[in-house]
Amino acid sequence: MTTDATGTGVTEQAVASLRATPDPRLRELLTALVRHLHDFARETRLTQGEWERAIAFLTATGQTCTDTRQEFILLSDVLGLSMLVETVHGDRAPGATESTVLGPFHLTESPVRELGDDIDLVGGGEPCVVSGRVRSADGTPLPGAVVDVWQADDQGYYDVQQPGVQPAGNGRGLFTADAEGRFWFRTCVPAPYPIPTDGPVGELLRATGRHPYRPAHIHFIASAAGHAPVTTHIFVAGDDYLDSDAVFAVKESLVQDFAETDDPSLAREFGVPNPFRHARFDLVLEPAP
Amino acid sequence: MTTDATGTGVTEQAVASLRATPDPRLRELLTALVRHLHDFARETRLTQGEWERAIAFLTATGQTCTDTRQEFILLSDVLGLSMLVETVHGDRAPGATESTVLGPFHLTESPVRELGDDIDLVGGGEPCVVSGRVRSADGTPLPGAVVDVWQADDQGYYDVQQPGVQPAGNGRGLFTADAEGRFWFRTCVPAPYPIPTDGPVGELLRATGRHPYRPAHIHFIASAAGHAPVTTHIFVAGDDYLDSDAVFAVKESLVQDFAETDDPSLAREFGVPNPFRHARFDLVLEPAP
Repeated sequence: MTTDATGTGVTEQAVASLRATPDPRLRELLTALVRHLHDFARETRLTQGEWERAIAFLTATGQTCTDTRQEFILLSDVLGLSMLVETVHGDRAPGATESTVLGPFHLTESPVRELGDDIDLVGGGEPCVVSGRVRSADGTPLPGAVVDVWQADDQGYYDVQQPGVQPAGNGRGLFTADAEGRFWFRTCVPAPYPIPTDGPVGELLRATGRHPYRPAHIHFIASAAGHAPVTTHIFVAGDDYLDSDAVFAVKESLVQDFAETDDPSLAREFGVPNPFRHARFDLVLEPAP
Repeated sequence: MTTDATGTGVTEQAVASLRATPDPRLRELLTALVRHLHDFARETRLTQGEWERAIAFLTATGQTCTDTRQEFILLSDVLGLSMLVETVHGDRAPGATESTVLGPFHLTESPVRELGDDIDLVGGGEPCVVSGRVRSADGTPLPGAVVDVWQADDQGYYDVQQPGVQPAGNGRGLFTADAEGRFWFRTCVPAPYPIPTDGPVGELLRATGRHPYRPAHIHFIASAAGHAPVTTHIFVAGDDYLDSDAVFAVKESLVQDFAETDDPSLAREFGVPNPFRHARFDLVLEPAP
């Protein structure tokens, strides 16, 4: 029974209640969670009214989620938690591609596409080519590596945000690297865009005076046999929001030039009008432990 | 941009993003929340897979909430957070009634009832009388004080959990103390009951090997002009779960004898068969600051 005024007794009771948790990792996680949550409430002297607002906020966040919208991932993203989880597991071999957040829009399977396909099914934006090689950390090419790609359209919307407006699979592709580990595809140059602000996370951004913009980027998950997969982006160099990404996901090594390229024969090869924008970068995977 | 391996750079970026929050208290709360959430993830080296499970759990918790069910309050309750928030604001004048958790079932307005009314509209359980006085901390009676009461039926269910089975307002009453601050009503002796286990919080309890029971209790919110309201329970003395309440809400001062009373004239006055169970306790409010 509780008689303490600082609440440490409640904390110890809650921690003690977790002692019989059969899974030791779950016990560790929940114990740490209870201690930090309680310390947060104790340090801030969280009031009943503030707690009620938090309950209402979390409830609304859960109820905003649908098959095509993940508001809790978005909340985790704008609090920097998603990026932190990526970062604390981000020790990679020198030269291996750095990871960044998954984001809330990897909710559907990307359609299987052929190397060279255009993932911009609508064709509104500035055409560009993305090409590179999937390599192991020692430089060995990884033939047959799978490269999952997704991005917003040139208006800043993912297909799942605009069913009926964008065709399903627009801006998405699942590519298989060729015998030399190479991948290439056509798309439009991504644009910076605001994360969705019509839900609880938007309210939070407004209440904190933060802008909702993400610098222009393309998402990747690269995987290959015998290697740890990497979830990452490439960012467009020169973007205004590189230093104030709403979800804190920018790493310098991921910023890529989408260089204006004047090369008629390469343009013909890629099937784009010359000159064209071209981002070249390699996805470098670490051997699995 | 982020290059740190421990993630402290991400944490500082997330904290810095909150600096322009116009409301200083919101800034304080969110800053402390970000620091504790990040420390939790950093200390435990939370993995991507664990983070994904947490996102799915929180989403399911939000989606389990309805107009008559509040799974996030239940989650806060079983983690001891609700009780902690009550406790850190629980400094009261000596003798003032201690507070405890609101719980997830105060979702409807209690029907206005007359002193002496029976809130057990179904009449299944053992009849009892609850009576007492609403007083100020200095002993002055508080005429016109409002006493909001709610409890589960003798099977352990609140009316909102069983629409169509229990009449709305069963186990609930909004009473006004008489000219001497007295209140009294009839009900059935409450029984211990499990909190709802068919949602995410139930999964959590099973995963941690915890029982879902709460010791038998009746909820109260007492309020009076010029005084701070108190949210509390009375617990039935001798209950098996007083030392292992699933939501950590028991305080010794709130445990009350529901004494077997053999007093024919009092029974007649209260309109119950003799002998009857009788809980007598006062609700003592602090003057508002």
